[in-house]
Amino acid sequence: MKKKVRITDTTLRDAHQSLWATRMRTEDMLPIIGKMDKVGYNAMEVWGGATFDVCMRYLNEDPWERLRLLNSYVRNTPLQMLLRGQNVVGYKHYPDDVVRRFVDKAAENGIDNFRIFDALNDVRNMEVAMKSVKETGKHAQATIAYTISPVHTIEHYVETAIILKDMGADSLCIKDMAGLLTPYRAYDLVSAIKEKIDLPIELHSHYIGGMAIPTYLKGIEAGVDIVDTATASLAFGSSQPPVETMTAILRNTDYDADLNLDLLFEIDSYWERVRRKRGFPRGVTRITDMQTFSHQVPGGMISNLVSQLEKQEALDRIHDVLEEIPRVREDLGYPPLVTPTSQIVGTQAVFNILLGERYKVIPDEVKSYIKGYYGRPPAEINPELQKKAIGDEEPITCRPADLLEPMLDNIKDEVERYVEKEEDYLSYSLFPQVGLKFLKERKKEKDIFGETEPEITREEEDMELKDIKE
Amino acid sequence: MKKKVRITDTTLRDAHQSLWATRMRTEDMLPIIGKMDKVGYNAMEVWGGATFDVCMRYLNEDPWERLRLLNSYVRNTPLQMLLRGQNVVGYKHYPDDVVRRFVDKAAENGIDNFRIFDALNDVRNMEVAMKSVKETGKHAQATIAYTISPVHTIEHYVETAIILKDMGADSLCIKDMAGLLTPYRAYDLVSAIKEKIDLPIELHSHYIGGMAIPTYLKGIEAGVDIVDTATASLAFGSSQPPVETMTAILRNTDYDADLNLDLLFEIDSYWERVRRKRGFPRGVTRITDMQTFSHQVPGGMISNLVSQLEKQEALDRIHDVLEEIPRVREDLGYPPLVTPTSQIVGTQAVFNILLGERYKVIPDEVKSYIKGYYGRPPAEINPELQKKAIGDEEPITCRPADLLEPMLDNIKDEVERYVEKEEDYLSYSLFPQVGLKFLKERKKEKDIFGETEPEITREEEDMELKDIKE
Ligand SMILES: [Co+2]
Ligand SMILES: [Co+2]
Repeated sequence: MKKKVRITDTTLRDAHQSLWATRMRTEDMLPIIGKMDKVGYNAMEVWGGATFDVCMRYLNEDPWERLRLLNSYVRNTPLQMLLRGQNVVGYKHYPDDVVRRFVDKAAENGIDNFRIFDALNDVRNMEVAMKSVKETGKHAQATIAYTISPVHTIEHYVETAIILKDMGADSLCIKDMAGLLTPYRAYDLVSAIKEKIDLPIELHSHYIGGMAIPTYLKGIEAGVDIVDTATASLAFGSSQPPVETMTAILRNTDYDADLNLDLLFEIDSYWERVRRKRGFPRGVTRITDMQTFSHQVPGGMISNLVSQLEKQEALDRIHDVLEEIPRVREDLGYPPLVTPTSQIVGTQAVFNILLGERYKVIPDEVKSYIKGYYGRPPAEINPELQKKAIGDEEPITCRPADLLEPMLDNIKDEVERYVEKEEDYLSYSLFPQVGLKFLKERKKEKDIFGETEPEITREEEDMELKDIKE
Repeated sequence: MKKKVRITDTTLRDAHQSLWATRMRTEDMLPIIGKMDKVGYNAMEVWGGATFDVCMRYLNEDPWERLRLLNSYVRNTPLQMLLRGQNVVGYKHYPDDVVRRFVDKAAENGIDNFRIFDALNDVRNMEVAMKSVKETGKHAQATIAYTISPVHTIEHYVETAIILKDMGADSLCIKDMAGLLTPYRAYDLVSAIKEKIDLPIELHSHYIGGMAIPTYLKGIEAGVDIVDTATASLAFGSSQPPVETMTAILRNTDYDADLNLDLLFEIDSYWERVRRKRGFPRGVTRITDMQTFSHQVPGGMISNLVSQLEKQEALDRIHDVLEEIPRVREDLGYPPLVTPTSQIVGTQAVFNILLGERYKVIPDEVKSYIKGYYGRPPAEINPELQKKAIGDEEPITCRPADLLEPMLDNIKDEVERYVEKEEDYLSYSLFPQVGLKFLKERKKEKDIFGETEPEITREEEDMELKDIKE
């Protein structure tokens, strides 16, 4: 049963998205990426999720350029991205032509592993993305978002896993975004899936309340092939567990990941200096993170609720809201609490408490959700609530993106004059406002200053490396 | 094989000793101790270790008075102390009469469980303490300090455990003060001891690099009966793992500790407020803590070395010193690195590196160690080093305290005029300078202000509780 475990590094994507508000810059990455490439990681997750948006919106960086640069310095390690299924790297459903073209271009620019997920575990929202990845010949990893509810039984997850395998998944990821997966539950879950399916399983937990490391360990004992970690300075708290600790735990066991601890420390020393220089916090576990254990509301969602309530001068109602959330979640068919469902459930719960009457006001996004525009909820929606929210209107039963018109051919004219490469059309399709602003400013800068983007050569990178090392 | 696990809380002793420089005050403890008493802990460690010294030295508090107060509010939970064997609660060997009287008085004032340890695992240094505890009828827990070396094999620990049982131990504690015990090693170690001995085993790890939680879990699977934790705000980092996480991990398993999570959160909210009010840091894991995994030097010891080297303007030699430490430790017969041996080894390593020649200077405490005054080292001392350090002098082979004269009858005159109770003689015997200063000032204050110590009645305590709750 025992076997060597592999480790995926999330430092350049999930870790800084979780701890640094996604503000890591390409220039932070380049001096160390060569060393990280030597560690022997299963993969490095470096792209997708919120990074695409943040690159353009806040960092004035071209996400495609980042990917190309990273890819040009990485020789050994597969590059991984998080693809939000039909949401691609955004927050809503996009038409199929955008999904397909995006996957093609991501593959062309260097992505080897596509981790594909949908907030509702609605496999229809993952279909086009998975098919597109398969067509590029790259690795399609299908994700199961882990949550707790009466319908999210182990049997339910096993069934979902079988469907995903049949859809062509090359591997499975169990995504424990809220740090809710306990060690012994992980053991049972992984054992049950492994019994039915022979795909590699990757375990992706967020540290949050502190269960992730033992959860990895019991997952590994049940047959998990790969676990996700980050470098120590960007680990813990709402990020992944640290690679150094996992390495030390598995060393000299049959699961040994065989990574070089001293190399990992060198790499972490670099990141620790970046962290301090940039003034970003360490990952820590606060009591609100622990409270997840009792009401299952993720820590990040609690912070959002707190600031929402503070604005309404109603922070004293936080406990009522926390108690209302599981009820709203039940009414809505037990969606996993992750963007965007966390917001849908949270906002409704706040309304219910502050207005003193449940569902007196039902926000538009809740109505959309009930109409089926986010996908199929895990369980039936409370019929009374449905009636109240959308009257006699029938929710859609098709895949939401079936209702969307193709987009790429229709936007050419709008941005053609700012476009330098095919990929720019995608940036614009995904984020019309942010993308257009980014493309326009890039053009303006180049008109004034000419081509200023530094062409970092191999020698320059080596110099930088020397500068920063010690 | 499976069974309910019990949990000991260390918040009032080890946790604040590890994170707050032992600066928690009795007034911090009293408003919450009643609630903590309701949790259902196996025990609360509230006394001993460094708290005795720090009470008098920095807090102007009488440690005996703290113990009495705590004991007067605790109805259900056994109170535990850490007793440093023949070092009692100090940093050197004391004569047997001091050890005996101290144990009597601690028991009389409320200690139920005595956790007894010796830095070198020299059972002779634990003998008198254990015998004294047995005579009081209280619980004598014998400790094995965990470390890594060629002589610290599992067989070695099993042999030590058998000796301790034969000496009358009511239970065993595996003390992993440096966070070095890996989960799978814990499993093997606990299994091996359990196979030979039927005493309850308590696992005491410090979080440090992040292995403690999975180590508890694998320890529990191997039969550990009790694990040590602290409240979340005083957990992590150099302290113990958090009780909330352990509770959530074990919940609904056969090991379930059956603690009430909501009560634990209430208690932690209190401690979080105290932490913020007093400005104490959270426990976090730094890269130096992780580096323990590669050279086995505890994080706290590294901080000391860093400040020592900074003073010598030689911080650039830190890596050389870290490499020298294992060599010095080998020469000295592989002592576990814990006070005072961590200082002995560390100081010698710094001399060896800064002077450019090994053992050019040998500090007095190293000579004492070689002469056997700290006890019997786990392995033979390098004969060349011994020759160089103490020439032809024969190290002692007896128990170090055999050479000490009884003390209590000889110090009466020196402090009689400041003494209010029997216990004051012990405070003075253990810490002549600090103790005398404390006793003198107490007398002076009372001479001026009269009896000002607040007599907290049950009603007042309830009021305070109400004030602070919420
Ligand atoms: Co994640
Ligand atoms: Co301790």
